[in-house]
Amino acid sequence: MDKNIPYKTYLEESEMPKQWYNVRADMKNKPAPLLNPATHKPMTAEELGVVFCDELVQQELDDTTPYIDIPQEIQEFYKMYRPSPLVRAYCLEKALGTPAKIYYKFEGNNTSGSHKLNSAIAQAYYAKKQGLKGVTTETGAGQWGTALSMACAYFGLDCKVFMVKVSYEQKPFRREVMRTYGASVTPSPSDTTNVGRKILAEHPGTTGSLGCAISEAVEVAVGSEGYRYVLGSVLNQVLLHQSVIGLESKAALEKIGVKPDIIIGCAGGGSNLGGLISPFMGEKLRGEADYRIIAVEPASCPSFTRGKYAYDFCDTGMVCPLAKMYTLGSGFIPSANHAGGLRYHGMSSTLSQLYDDKLMEAVSVEQTSVFAAAQQFARIEGILPAPESSHAIRVAIDEALKCKETGEEKTILFGLTGTGYFDMVAYQKFNDGEMTDYIPTDEDLAKGFAGLPKI
Amino acid sequence: MDKNIPYKTYLEESEMPKQWYNVRADMKNKPAPLLNPATHKPMTAEELGVVFCDELVQQELDDTTPYIDIPQEIQEFYKMYRPSPLVRAYCLEKALGTPAKIYYKFEGNNTSGSHKLNSAIAQAYYAKKQGLKGVTTETGAGQWGTALSMACAYFGLDCKVFMVKVSYEQKPFRREVMRTYGASVTPSPSDTTNVGRKILAEHPGTTGSLGCAISEAVEVAVGSEGYRYVLGSVLNQVLLHQSVIGLESKAALEKIGVKPDIIIGCAGGGSNLGGLISPFMGEKLRGEADYRIIAVEPASCPSFTRGKYAYDFCDTGMVCPLAKMYTLGSGFIPSANHAGGLRYHGMSSTLSQLYDDKLMEAVSVEQTSVFAAAQQFARIEGILPAPESSHAIRVAIDEALKCKETGEEKTILFGLTGTGYFDMVAYQKFNDGEMTDYIPTDEDLAKGFAGLPKI
Repeated sequence: MDKNIPYKTYLEESEMPKQWYNVRADMKNKPAPLLNPATHKPMTAEELGVVFCDELVQQELDDTTPYIDIPQEIQEFYKMYRPSPLVRAYCLEKALGTPAKIYYKFEGNNTSGSHKLNSAIAQAYYAKKQGLKGVTTETGAGQWGTALSMACAYFGLDCKVFMVKVSYEQKPFRREVMRTYGASVTPSPSDTTNVGRKILAEHPGTTGSLGCAISEAVEVAVGSEGYRYVLGSVLNQVLLHQSVIGLESKAALEKIGVKPDIIIGCAGGGSNLGGLISPFMGEKLRGEADYRIIAVEPASCPSFTRGKYAYDFCDTGMVCPLAKMYTLGSGFIPSANHAGGLRYHGMSSTLSQLYDDKLMEAVSVEQTSVFAAAQQFARIEGILPAPESSHAIRVAIDEALKCKETGEEKTILFGLTGTGYFDMVAYQKFNDGEMTDYIPTDEDLAKGFAGLPKI
Repeated sequence: MDKNIPYKTYLEESEMPKQWYNVRADMKNKPAPLLNPATHKPMTAEELGVVFCDELVQQELDDTTPYIDIPQEIQEFYKMYRPSPLVRAYCLEKALGTPAKIYYKFEGNNTSGSHKLNSAIAQAYYAKKQGLKGVTTETGAGQWGTALSMACAYFGLDCKVFMVKVSYEQKPFRREVMRTYGASVTPSPSDTTNVGRKILAEHPGTTGSLGCAISEAVEVAVGSEGYRYVLGSVLNQVLLHQSVIGLESKAALEKIGVKPDIIIGCAGGGSNLGGLISPFMGEKLRGEADYRIIAVEPASCPSFTRGKYAYDFCDTGMVCPLAKMYTLGSGFIPSANHAGGLRYHGMSSTLSQLYDDKLMEAVSVEQTSVFAAAQQFARIEGILPAPESSHAIRVAIDEALKCKETGEEKTILFGLTGTGYFDMVAYQKFNDGEMTDYIPTDEDLAKGFAGLPKI
């Protein structure tokens, strides 16, 4: 053990962030604005206000204010499950025999099982503040839906979740957690919306997709008095709320006098990665420090590493604004053997711009190697990680092993976004040696790109 | 919020206990010794050493040493997931409108999902130290089996788990967590042991019981070179290891200047309750302080409140030593509608003696009211509790509501032993309004008592 560096570093409650950090304020090249899908003009606050809560719209559009106060009520809720620990992976270092120093920020110590609660509680708060009756959303792997159910229960809001049908059927326990928190959960596509009926008619027997569930949730929000739609990733506002991960990580590292060399996060829509890296990226943007930042995505859904940087639909039903992002096309669906989340076709506009500006790297990894890392980590560090988080573990281990070869004592920080307790079907496949990989062919990707709007 | 009392109090790693506390040392009336089932004479260390690891046998028999050093390796492992937080339930207090101050010690923030890991790592450590190849055990709800799998993976020991068949079938995900940690899991009763085959022949179609799984695990341990049997509750050694819960709780409370009036824990075999209360009970035994201590058990398995204090078999196959305890008879099996753990027919000898000496109280609660408390707690405090833990929540809420009536500002501490992520079948029953209660009739109990040995 390093002297004075404990296994786990917790901030005092008084040291917890009181403001979120908005990385866009420090970006020279701002993320491209959302466009109206009909006019192709930037969405106005008024237009966005039909779908989103007013104060969240302000946060979505604000690319100049660096720090935004965290309302007191949200700070209180954060204290129920935060600060999350910054863990020194002493056991993993020893098992790998690496001179690297490995830290992870563990966001799984709450019932939602992931970092998603950080933004869910914020979005529920603003909905409550606006006097709304409830919110609608979609969920894929189920972490976001669970988080939002918890947040809505806390504020007494109704919560309608459209859950991708394949997850609804394969993860009945996730569904029950949401129901325990009082949410209604509908498998998507459903016959309760126009867009759902249309998709069912066109693709009978479909098991659904995130893009489709988004369309249904938006339709219900727009068509119901006193409801708005909320989203767990991709959006600027979500990255803003998730900055609490990076701010806490940075404060905890400073408390023990450590500066990371490499920061690693898994990337699906970008909520965790964007939150984890934001204050570090801010330093980098302001020229105060340099970090190597690595986004890790599944080889089966490689939006950064093989996608196009273009305006695209955010949803299958094409009812949402257009976003400029690294994307595989809104029609892209990962192959059926892909386990867990990180399956969205696009990537946060903010992260897309930062990646395009070469301020961060991206790598893709195959899922059998991801689950091998997950199992190794579980046995050594005692935490059974979510499949999503395990993408970051894979690359953290790989980087630590490189250090073993070169003898470099690099300091690695990665985001351990959550736990895998509801992903045991995937673990079982891995345990039984039945898990497979699939990398989309160029032809597979071409089909997705063909659906990109002409802008 | 009370000034200076945070939501969560964590000890520093340097403040974590370095010794376990052995409450038996302070008991005037010692717990009755284990008896050889053939001779009815107290089990010797030599006899016990056939079944248990040598150093654990010493701990089992030692009723005079008040403090026993926690080996450095176990302290290091504890640092991976401990200290566990002492939480002030501000949100619950507010929702109940009670003047009571409610604290809980949360043991669910580790992958085993419960406090069981505290003893599992200790037992695995001593097995490793003795140079054994592996250990065998039984598991019911699955928390203990998961904890032991994690501990064995850490020390590179083989781990054979006999899982009560009904749990094996209803909780495939628990099984997969154990397999992910490298354990072999066999549904019990099985045809791999003599006792299993005998039980299957006598009760074809049985879904198993803890008592039966214990018999199988003991048989395999005794019959295999380099193996010993380990147990997750009931035994003195387990209560010793679990004292870390109470010691941390007491240290954290002292750190914030709080003294509890009432201490509440759920009770199955007694591992959590015994651990939580031990240092407080020690003060009580030494006349240094007084506390009201309440054991909460299921009305469907009421060993304290309706059992007999007598010598009984610890297992169905009657291969284990006899223990004097509050018991429903080794043939007692809770009704099929009973969800979760707390289903063992007997109770820790140490706790039985303390209860018989009127140093603690016991109440029984019905499961629908337990799940109502669980749901309420989940929505308010953000943690989805295990069914077992929710027994303590039920009574903590009841006591807080009594304070509301009387206006008393009592301080309540309860043990939140774990999370319910693998208990969603039971939650689903509750959510669907299909959960039922069953209180055994006097005739049901008489059948169990009829099987008590004549000693």
